[in-house]
Amino acid sequence: MPPVIRFAASADAWEDYEGPLRRALAARGLGAAELSAGALPPDRVDYIVYAPSSEVQDFAPYTRLKAVLNLWAGVENVVGNPTLRVPLARMVDAGLTQGMVEWVTGHALRHHLGIDHCLAHQSGDWVRHVPPLARDRPVTVLGLGALGRACAQALAALNFPVTGWSRTSREVAGIRCLSGEAGLAPALRGAEIVVLLLPDTPATADVMNAGTLALPSAGAVLLNPGRGTLIDDAALLDALDRGQIGHATLDVFRHEPLPADHPFWAHPKVTVTPHIASETRPATAAEVIAENVRRGEAGEPLLHLVDRARGY
Amino acid sequence: MPPVIRFAASADAWEDYEGPLRRALAARGLGAAELSAGALPPDRVDYIVYAPSSEVQDFAPYTRLKAVLNLWAGVENVVGNPTLRVPLARMVDAGLTQGMVEWVTGHALRHHLGIDHCLAHQSGDWVRHVPPLARDRPVTVLGLGALGRACAQALAALNFPVTGWSRTSREVAGIRCLSGEAGLAPALRGAEIVVLLLPDTPATADVMNAGTLALPSAGAVLLNPGRGTLIDDAALLDALDRGQIGHATLDVFRHEPLPADHPFWAHPKVTVTPHIASETRPATAAEVIAENVRRGEAGEPLLHLVDRARGY
Repeated sequence: MPPVIRFAASADAWEDYEGPLRRALAARGLGAAELSAGALPPDRVDYIVYAPSSEVQDFAPYTRLKAVLNLWAGVENVVGNPTLRVPLARMVDAGLTQGMVEWVTGHALRHHLGIDHCLAHQSGDWVRHVPPLARDRPVTVLGLGALGRACAQALAALNFPVTGWSRTSREVAGIRCLSGEAGLAPALRGAEIVVLLLPDTPATADVMNAGTLALPSAGAVLLNPGRGTLIDDAALLDALDRGQIGHATLDVFRHEPLPADHPFWAHPKVTVTPHIASETRPATAAEVIAENVRRGEAGEPLLHLVDRARGY
Repeated sequence: MPPVIRFAASADAWEDYEGPLRRALAARGLGAAELSAGALPPDRVDYIVYAPSSEVQDFAPYTRLKAVLNLWAGVENVVGNPTLRVPLARMVDAGLTQGMVEWVTGHALRHHLGIDHCLAHQSGDWVRHVPPLARDRPVTVLGLGALGRACAQALAALNFPVTGWSRTSREVAGIRCLSGEAGLAPALRGAEIVVLLLPDTPATADVMNAGTLALPSAGAVLLNPGRGTLIDDAALLDALDRGQIGHATLDVFRHEPLPADHPFWAHPKVTVTPHIASETRPATAAEVIAENVRRGEAGEPLLHLVDRARGY
């Protein structure tokens, strides 16, 4: 019997995804799959395509459910759901990874080259500050999952000396890799640009706090395209005001949209980008969803399964 | 007899270069070379290290001169000197090339990601504009010398679809290469970012004029880290005012420093950077100078010889 798939994300997402998903399913011989964005009798649904805004929050009535396929990279809104008892797959989308590489590389080079200073000095003063070369600007990337690895490698390709840190030990070609609690301080010490690409888990909350913010070089730049919970906001504001952190470019926040009266907006050393560092791209993401449906039907292991104990 | 080398650039340059040059000469068995930044009897000098600001402008008295070794990439201030009758070598410095790659990549990503817009909207409005991926943003690089090739390849590594154009035919891996008069319009047509890295010669003057500025996509961005003479300034201002060119980021100008009353400074669609896109770096450039002295002494062909007829 063809699988029944409930697309339980927003109406906007349905508009973007319906065509690519039907094509990606058909390309795998699953053209007969029943794909619906509307409510279906829960006991008929084989797969749920899930987003944090989903109206499906209680999985208990979905008695024949085979898997929940998350439309986004982050799973913090669903991984702890006690009614979820089937495999959960994260999205690892080539388009999302590429967009993240572009945001991280672009903002790293923006700070490296002093572009903000240059934009603020367009009133006729010809003052030459030639920046150092990237090879003399140490960068540290916290998190070496698909996104962290890709960003670390793109920065290394531009000759930045890159250190990567992850909770469990990883090897990435061309990157100095450190891991575990004991590796965190050596990874941060002396960094001039710090990029946060850790998942949102209890173990990563406030990883950048008063103690760890003191470790990078004085005036270092912090880029956070990861998760808002990775930073102790009050400690960051204090480090910025003391000059220990020279600038923070933040794409994610504890509460989104970031409230208009939050001190980050008006702070001269903070750049807010409105959670645009990267986004799942329908054309490539639909392929991942369809491939996981095919694998589920064929009894093969799903791609990008979440380890529920670790939370990602 | 050990060679006699006159360092005929500024006192500041001498301070930066003396140590690296002596070390690079010694590493090639030329530790006994006489290296001086002060005036020497012209008929004793074997090599002149030259900069545009050099006090040496008449080469006629240098009767035993073997070569002029330019400290910079551009040779337009010396190539036409009628008293110069010995080989002239340009600087092709790995540090200069790398700095140029960083400037071009950083400003290309700045425009690609809409960073200026983001910096101008820090007053609490959470409006999400996710940029397209680089793979959907065509870039054209005019000039495929050492700098153009390196920049084209760095942009292609970030997935930008890159077209390169040169006067004479070139092949660069991963780049669509066009050449000659007939190739210029197809190379520019539809580009969203245009990078100018041609040398300053009679044939490249005003290569961006009213006609060629009309070819890129409406709203395209122009980056000029090459030479000021490549652009017809009045035609560019007109194209900016009509919106055909969306922004120009210019590092080089017909007259430098750019006069404080030049319309580029105040123009909202122009970013001026004060000729900092790249600079020769003493540590790496000294190796090139020393290697050419070694080659000259050994009777081997010099690196990076200038073709006096083409002018670069």
